[in-house]
Order: sequence, then C-alpha cells, then structure tokens
Amino acid sequence: MSELEEKTLKTKEIYHGKIITLHLDEVELPNGKTATREIVKHPGAVAIMALTSDQRMIFVRQFRKPLEKTILEIPAGKLEKGEDPKRCAERELLEETGYTAKQLKQISAFYTSPGFANEFLYLFEAEDLVSGQAEPDEDEFVELTLLNLKEAFEAIERGEIIDAKTVLAVYYWQNQQLQGK
Amino acid sequence: MSELEEKTLKTKEIYHGKIITLHLDEVELPNGKTATREIVKHPGAVAIMALTSDQRMIFVRQFRKPLEKTILEIPAGKLEKGEDPKRCAERELLEETGYTAKQLKQISAFYTSPGFANEFLYLFEAEDLVSGQAEPDEDEFVELTLLNLKEAFEAIERGEIIDAKTVLAVYYWQNQQLQGK
Repeated sequence: MSELEEKTLKTKEIYHGKIITLHLDEVELPNGKTATREIVKHPGAVAIMALTSDQRMIFVRQFRKPLEKTILEIPAGKLEKGEDPKRCAERELLEETGYTAKQLKQISAFYTSPGFANEFLYLFEAEDLVSGQAEPDEDEFVELTLLNLKEAFEAIERGEIIDAKTVLAVYYWQNQQLQGK
Repeated sequence: MSELEEKTLKTKEIYHGKIITLHLDEVELPNGKTATREIVKHPGAVAIMALTSDQRMIFVRQFRKPLEKTILEIPAGKLEKGEDPKRCAERELLEETGYTAKQLKQISAFYTSPGFANEFLYLFEAEDLVSGQAEPDEDEFVELTLLNLKEAFEAIERGEIIDAKTVLAVYYWQNQQLQGK
C-alpha cells in the first residue's frame, strides 16, 4: 500500500439505481485514522467531437435535470454493459445526431468527478461524416446545432457551453487549429 | 416551458450525506410520458491552475477512493456553504500546496457530470506565487509535483493525469503558450 492510499474497512450499498449506485465506505487513512467516503458508481460514458468538412463541430442542445437547465454539449452517452467504447461512440453519434463517421478515433479519456464518482469518459474525434436520420432514445430529447470555433467560444462566453467535456473538446479543437492540424 | 424541458412530478430524497445528497425525481417528458432521474446534489468546487515563474504547473498527487487509484490533479476542493469561489481557491491552494498567489483570476466554470450530478466547478489561474507551508485537512493526504507543459503531456500519455478538469487545464495552458500569452 502506497503512503497515500485509503484502505476499505467497510462498504455499504445505500442505493442501487437504474444508472448509478451509491456506496458509503469506511476507510483507514494513511495516518491510521478512519473516515467515511461517499462514492457514486457509474457505468462510464463516451463523448464525440464530430467535425464537418466545413470545420464546424456538432453540438446537441439538451435539458439536464440535475442542472434544471438546457445546455449545449457534444454528443455523449452511457456505456451499455460490456460495450466497446468505440461502438458506443458510433451508436450515440447516430442516435443523437443521425451522423455516421468514416473516421472515428479516441483522443482522450478521463474521470469526470474523481472526488465522489467513478464515471470514466472516453472522448472520440469523428470525421468524414455522413448525415442521416437521428434515432433518439424514447426518453431523450435533443436539438442539433453546428458551430464553428469562433461561435463555440461565443457559446462558452454566453454560458451556454458550460459542461466540462464540451469545454475540453473546444480547447482541444482550438489547439489543433493553432497547430495547423 | 421550452420544448426540451422535463417537469418534476415528484422528488424523493434517498440519501443526505456529508458531501452529496441523492434525489430520485419522477419527471414529465416533453412528449407527456414519465421517466425517473437519479440526481446527485453537490456543493460545487474550485480548481486552480497555478503557474510558477519558470513556467511549471503545480499538481497534487492524491488517492481517490472512487477510482481506487492515486492520480495527478491540479489543486481543487469543495466550496463551503456560502463561500465565495475566489476565497475558496485561495484557501485550497494554500491548504494543499502552501502557495499563495498575488494574481488569481477565474478563467472558466463548468458542470463536471451534467447527466447525473449538479457539481459546478470554477477554474482559476494563479500567478505570482509565493511558497509557504501546506495546511492539509486532517483527512487529506497529497504530494506536490511541478511539471512543465511537455512533462504534463507525458503524464497524460502515461494515464497519470486522467481527470477532466486537469486535462482541460493542460489544454488551456497549451493554448496560451501557442498564442504566446
């Protein structure tokens, strides 16, 4: 055990839901004292920065109940049990936007809220897009918006893009353009 | 009500913890059907990209129980009730790293996991740093690491920087450097 690790003494499942599970762990700290940790387990997710041939990124406008707000995000969705992240990215892109991508590659992966949740998100870049008909889930309502880099930064300024994975994708996109890629 | 909104029909508190609260909401969808939403309430947080005069960023190595992993992150911490985000950033930077900043400005703010949680994070840039003695919370154990931009990208490649706010901060930093700021 490294000198920073916390050893689980006891774990208790508080809630087992459709998407998330809540655990309460009692842990032994590096100094031998104990503490409790509230832990949200999540199946993981993917997000897709999809770029059109005229250098616009595809966003979806979506109501998010935890925020009580409608915000702009890049297309994203939860992994199904055992699902390959790339397959999930293809599926979510099609479901939410109707687009399929001839090129799809993972560009990053990260935990979204490591302090209290284990949600892990794979970020893909989609290019060579072919448009088609969206097939949203029956409880999913989204509106498509295409923005160029300048418009994306304006949406950040207005507070309409206000989601970590989407801000991160816009910064990544800016880096690519600044580097002439 | 916009055509994307979900109206709360019923809300139930499943768990009220030290840091997070879990709600289960029954909602009416835009098409009139109902669905349930699992919602984690969080007090919000700050994170700080602190840059030394020799162009290195300050990271903390910290064990994260939800991940069962020790990872590198920029300094961060939860808002106390009613606390001003900038004051919180000053406090967390001092507690975790011992540094105080003569310049501290907000550069971004975002939700970390809008699908299931309302955690909102304010990102600050700290410059003109003065080093001092760290004052960690009694249940907090962190190790300081300073990395230049190249080393930060190497830590991303190695999967040691694997946290959304920290990857986002490194991309932001790269943008600033590419733009000669």
